Amino acid sequence: MSVPSKTQKPFLQALAGETLSPPPVWLMRQAGRYLPEYRATREEAGGFLDLCYTPKLAVEVTLQPLRRYAFDAAILFSDILVVPNAIGRQVAFKQGEGPVLDPLTSRADVEALEPGKLRERLGPVFETVRGLASAIPSTTALIGFAGAPWTVATYMLEGGSSKDFSVAKSWVYSRPDDFAALMEVLIGATTDYLIAQIDAGAEAIQIFDTWAGVLPETEFHRWVIEPIGRITRALHEQRPGVPVIGFPKGAGVLYETFIRETGVDGVGLDASVPLAWAAKTLQPLCTVQGNMDPLLLVEGGPLMEQAVKRLLDTLGHGPFIFNLGHGIVPQTPPENVSRLIDLVRAPR
Amino acid sequence: MSVPSKTQKPFLQALAGETLSPPPVWLMRQAGRYLPEYRATREEAGGFLDLCYTPKLAVEVTLQPLRRYAFDAAILFSDILVVPNAIGRQVAFKQGEGPVLDPLTSRADVEALEPGKLRERLGPVFETVRGLASAIPSTTALIGFAGAPWTVATYMLEGGSSKDFSVAKSWVYSRPDDFAALMEVLIGATTDYLIAQIDAGAEAIQIFDTWAGVLPETEFHRWVIEPIGRITRALHEQRPGVPVIGFPKGAGVLYETFIRETGVDGVGLDASVPLAWAAKTLQPLCTVQGNMDPLLLVEGGPLMEQAVKRLLDTLGHGPFIFNLGHGIVPQTPPENVSRLIDLVRAPR
Repeated sequence: MSVPSKTQKPFLQALAGETLSPPPVWLMRQAGRYLPEYRATREEAGGFLDLCYTPKLAVEVTLQPLRRYAFDAAILFSDILVVPNAIGRQVAFKQGEGPVLDPLTSRADVEALEPGKLRERLGPVFETVRGLASAIPSTTALIGFAGAPWTVATYMLEGGSSKDFSVAKSWVYSRPDDFAALMEVLIGATTDYLIAQIDAGAEAIQIFDTWAGVLPETEFHRWVIEPIGRITRALHEQRPGVPVIGFPKGAGVLYETFIRETGVDGVGLDASVPLAWAAKTLQPLCTVQGNMDPLLLVEGGPLMEQAVKRLLDTLGHGPFIFNLGHGIVPQTPPENVSRLIDLVRAPR
Repeated sequence: MSVPSKTQKPFLQALAGETLSPPPVWLMRQAGRYLPEYRATREEAGGFLDLCYTPKLAVEVTLQPLRRYAFDAAILFSDILVVPNAIGRQVAFKQGEGPVLDPLTSRADVEALEPGKLRERLGPVFETVRGLASAIPSTTALIGFAGAPWTVATYMLEGGSSKDFSVAKSWVYSRPDDFAALMEVLIGATTDYLIAQIDAGAEAIQIFDTWAGVLPETEFHRWVIEPIGRITRALHEQRPGVPVIGFPKGAGVLYETFIRETGVDGVGLDASVPLAWAAKTLQPLCTVQGNMDPLLLVEGGPLMEQAVKRLLDTLGHGPFIFNLGHGIVPQTPPENVSRLIDLVRAPR
């Protein structure tokens, strides 16, 4: 396999701190339900996890958006819940309902987790990464990813999505030792998982902490910053040169501390982050990525044009990767994605 | 009715900019399901809206927490969705499901709203306020409230709670004129509603913008800051001396701009706001209120003790009202509320 040099890939250049004009662009959930060809492959696969665990199909859906759009990065098609699944928990995706897990209820449940089985059980995911590494265009970077320990823990404790995270927080507050034990398992398993993705060909890593914003400051430090910092440092030490993007959604004011203390190379900004503040406070610390509202991509038209212009005007003068503030939504017209890329790439 | 002077009420002193030790304390949703006497009265009332619209029962549930705890403020028992209900929309509360509304689908639906009927239809709410004004202890302040136009609009457009606010945002982005027309109605109706609460005896107003945090910066300015600013200025002009607290939940970095541009007297901080930043950036601008995680009140014990101490140490040196970062949750042990108040009031 011939590995294109980093300097051929704008996405990696931006993560190395270069200011590029135009900036690289990719979109969270770019392989997804808004594409008819994705829906067809998903139907062929059967269940959602079958799609994640069948390398041929997972490679196919990862590549589908690249055939339509010249994105600067491809992200492995998978799900953050393959990690709990691989360490011994039941995970199911029911159409229109979101994920359902058998919730952890005891310390014994935590002790029974099988992080040692992860590499074997997620073999198909690593095979997908290997397939992608040899299939994507030479200027496209390949992103591996995982959920952050806090976000994955919420699903494992709540048994799915949550409104107020009362079960997960009851572990944080009332059973701190049990919660810490669970987080230790997840920090180790996540590190292991990401290293294996890198070894299979992932050139950059994104860590998704979707529910970071529901924690108060003290717990944000302990359960968002510390775990992601440990994983980031482990990756930097063991696989130097592979950049890490952290995405602590909803971190608000704490985005700054997050970057300083985790040592991430890039940070994903959710759609609520004000741009001038990000340019002044965050961009001097690391590469920023984001943050157009996915619903603006549904709308398209002059409003989207203005939003792109504002993003480029504000964040385009430093290391920046164009993205959304959250994943593409299923009702997005595919032609709006073409238009978006044209706008980002237009000569300025 | 003898009106106690403002100087007898610590809550109003704090909102006037005084630093009090101990600070005043009340809790969002302090009249609620965690109290057995509330559950009994609600059962007696039948439906949730029947409880809101029956002054005798609404007064009773508002007073229930005051009989147990010496809170510095009572908040009118009602719901933010009485406003859409009063201007002509169906609203229902189904046990365990959250609110259900018949969603607005057209400009004609907006034109058909009946803001002129609000005062008559919400007569029972104003009667409740009058009953409370003469019933609460002389050092307790009476807070009136409303939902902010953006948050109320999301319920009217989505037909209830939402995951991604795609319907509300499709109005914001794709039908800006129709959305603006709806917001005009809500700004007017909300102002009218709050003035009538003040005339009935409310001594301070809180405006709840629960879903402020899902809007990008540009839309946050237009649909959170501008409407709340207009309502705040109208109240200040027409009923001078009645302080207004804004609660733009999830505003993150934009809390600062929110305070500067709305002119609120106080700001409610959600549980994610870091305290040192709030003390340095927000407290010089107005009185701050918040922000203990409601789940810590479920836990109680030493962790809650530490959280209270941190809040008092950080925000207690300026104008401050102790509160939670969100409403009390039903599983809260009532004895933890007693303990919390003792901690806040302990000599320091």
